[in-house]
Amino acid sequence: MNGPIDKSLRERAARVIPGGMYGHQSAASLPANYPQFFARAEGPWLWDVDGNRYLDFMCAYGPQLFGYAHPGIDAAYANQMRTGDAMTGPTALMVELAEAFTSMISHATWAMFCKNGSDATTIALMAARAQTKRNAIVRATGAYHGAQPWSNPRPAGTSPGDRAGQHFCTYNDVASLEEAVKAAGDDLAAIFVSPFRHDTFQDQSLPTREFAQRCRELADKTGALLIVDDVRGGFRVSRDCSWSIVGVEPDISCWGKTIANGHPISAVLGSDRARPGASSIFTTGSYWFAAAAMAASLATLELIRETDYLERLNAMGDTLRAGFDERAKAHGFSIRQTGPSPMPQILFDDDPDYRVGYGWCSEMLKRGVYTHPWHNMFLSAAMGDAEIAFALKAAGESFEALRASVASLEPHRMFAGRT
Amino acid sequence: MNGPIDKSLRERAARVIPGGMYGHQSAASLPANYPQFFARAEGPWLWDVDGNRYLDFMCAYGPQLFGYAHPGIDAAYANQMRTGDAMTGPTALMVELAEAFTSMISHATWAMFCKNGSDATTIALMAARAQTKRNAIVRATGAYHGAQPWSNPRPAGTSPGDRAGQHFCTYNDVASLEEAVKAAGDDLAAIFVSPFRHDTFQDQSLPTREFAQRCRELADKTGALLIVDDVRGGFRVSRDCSWSIVGVEPDISCWGKTIANGHPISAVLGSDRARPGASSIFTTGSYWFAAAAMAASLATLELIRETDYLERLNAMGDTLRAGFDERAKAHGFSIRQTGPSPMPQILFDDDPDYRVGYGWCSEMLKRGVYTHPWHNMFLSAAMGDAEIAFALKAAGESFEALRASVASLEPHRMFAGRT
Repeated sequence: MNGPIDKSLRERAARVIPGGMYGHQSAASLPANYPQFFARAEGPWLWDVDGNRYLDFMCAYGPQLFGYAHPGIDAAYANQMRTGDAMTGPTALMVELAEAFTSMISHATWAMFCKNGSDATTIALMAARAQTKRNAIVRATGAYHGAQPWSNPRPAGTSPGDRAGQHFCTYNDVASLEEAVKAAGDDLAAIFVSPFRHDTFQDQSLPTREFAQRCRELADKTGALLIVDDVRGGFRVSRDCSWSIVGVEPDISCWGKTIANGHPISAVLGSDRARPGASSIFTTGSYWFAAAAMAASLATLELIRETDYLERLNAMGDTLRAGFDERAKAHGFSIRQTGPSPMPQILFDDDPDYRVGYGWCSEMLKRGVYTHPWHNMFLSAAMGDAEIAFALKAAGESFEALRASVASLEPHRMFAGRT
Repeated sequence: MNGPIDKSLRERAARVIPGGMYGHQSAASLPANYPQFFARAEGPWLWDVDGNRYLDFMCAYGPQLFGYAHPGIDAAYANQMRTGDAMTGPTALMVELAEAFTSMISHATWAMFCKNGSDATTIALMAARAQTKRNAIVRATGAYHGAQPWSNPRPAGTSPGDRAGQHFCTYNDVASLEEAVKAAGDDLAAIFVSPFRHDTFQDQSLPTREFAQRCRELADKTGALLIVDDVRGGFRVSRDCSWSIVGVEPDISCWGKTIANGHPISAVLGSDRARPGASSIFTTGSYWFAAAAMAASLATLELIRETDYLERLNAMGDTLRAGFDERAKAHGFSIRQTGPSPMPQILFDDDPDYRVGYGWCSEMLKRGVYTHPWHNMFLSAAMGDAEIAFALKAAGESFEALRASVASLEPHRMFAGRT
């Protein structure tokens, strides 16, 4: 709940930050009672600057796989920071981390490390272009692959050349995929896909086996590389690349967010087939060789390998989904819960301007649960039965409150005037 | 000195990292005895994996302004990490950091934070394009503005569209600047400049007042934005934007490296004139709102404001330069030391394939001093009189050893066959 401290910080931010805030963590498109600024976080819990506590179903928009301030992972970071972090060259941890990833991810024989998810997707794009000496890519309409000019979801500040040679298909629609590949012709460098459809404002869709296999076949047939952008989905769908669930291996996969439980590192993993292209490009960043985030990533990968976190995430996600559904029905709402259980997207039927969804999230927030009205959410392994019960209790009360107020809801100002 | 542990790590890296290593921290283009992997660092000192200690004149390629493992800065990072780092939104530190920057940097009224230097330069480019609704940019041949496709120093993996609308001038050459601006015509979005010429393999040049003023005038005349890329030079030339030394204020400046003494954060700073463009773009990254690096940056900015670090860097740089020059002459070498004293570039006369420079660096390394044969170097405030004396003693011995071996030097394999 945004209180007086949040309000005061927003006023100060409006003076010194363009638009008051930018990017995916701007609260401008969230329900009016959502806070912009936070004070602390621990395990599955998050506190805003006015002292309100939330069970956080955004997990920092993904990274918090094992919960905030994880003692073991953060100790690995802090210890390495004291020994040596950003130095004049990498440490042995870079080799160890590349070995850990290539031993865990079936398709991968090599790894490169960077900082942003956008770095990973851009390296993948460059590696594919360098390897094939071609320019065109096929990607799905509405899929987010980062905010670099070539992939930015908005046109502002981009140049037509940034998006030259991009051909679009519809996720899971084989005919549209074939058409886009045909349009790219003999210039096709890469087919770029999300591991499942996780577009904002939309129901999520798991990949069909037919679509994934056709991506693989078309890449092989044309000599293009198949790239799976696992930055958002990675390690919440599988301990391997997410397309392992449909039995398809990409040439390159892109990783970030979960791989060091929130510490700043992302990764590109590739097969031997993709190695020449990756070896030929120049790519770098000031902090890409820094060791502390690599130590945290090694500690995170160990937890991924050696705990039942994924089975627990799935079980909790299933319980949550069934419980939300039951409570929605009990109060006369019809909701669509889509995507993998640990990454739920919840949208309301008959809600073209999302006002009902916004209203529900707003009620959930009042009851100490941070959900999102149009972006998929994330469970963390720091959650347990008590947290799931807490969320379900809040959900029941929120549906009840929503039932009482739904007739008088107004659309969020983002949608005012739209239907 | 690369020993058996370094050798073994290189062999493992060759299997799991494309090309064995990538980017600016690859040792492939350094003298043959340089190590690739490091074990630890403290203050001005760096240890490789085989236990050799170096006085490090690369400072992690810039970031280490106050020395490795700085207790106060690292404590700020560690404390904030325990409280809350990457969360579902920013903390008050983001506002405080934007306020700190805008109070210190004359031209700036706003700030945006990101992770890589390349993020900062790309945001600047996008903001200028969004603001002017134009595409072209003018930049200097050979200047490095990061490794994104639009600025990548190599063509591999880039597409012709990435560089559309780029017009090149020669740094400090007003006539070439005017010509490039003319060529961009009414499509000019930005003039992009380094604070001084710090191209690799070249003598450095401080900006002439005439060149800087003409950049400002031409931006004003054409309605383009003037962007100073201070990622590498920032805070080693001035406590303000580096072009304060020639009395010219840009519309946007790009920062990184030193601003948190090696912790991962970069920044874009801008004036009110540039605010509409910056406010209109979508730009973001998974870890851009994380608080720990912001806490470290606030601690670093405090040291920048409140210590005599810059005067000390200049004094040490001057002593070093005079001492190197004297020792070179004493052994019959003629060297060119260029650029700001805290960021020396040292090149040898009559050394077209850099073999003499490589030879000298190789000798310095044997004596525990890490210098660079073709990239500008960096002093840190953790150095003092004892370290400068150590470097000068090593330099004298290295020039002497080089005199004995110079006739038999071979060119580095990078240059084999070139003259």
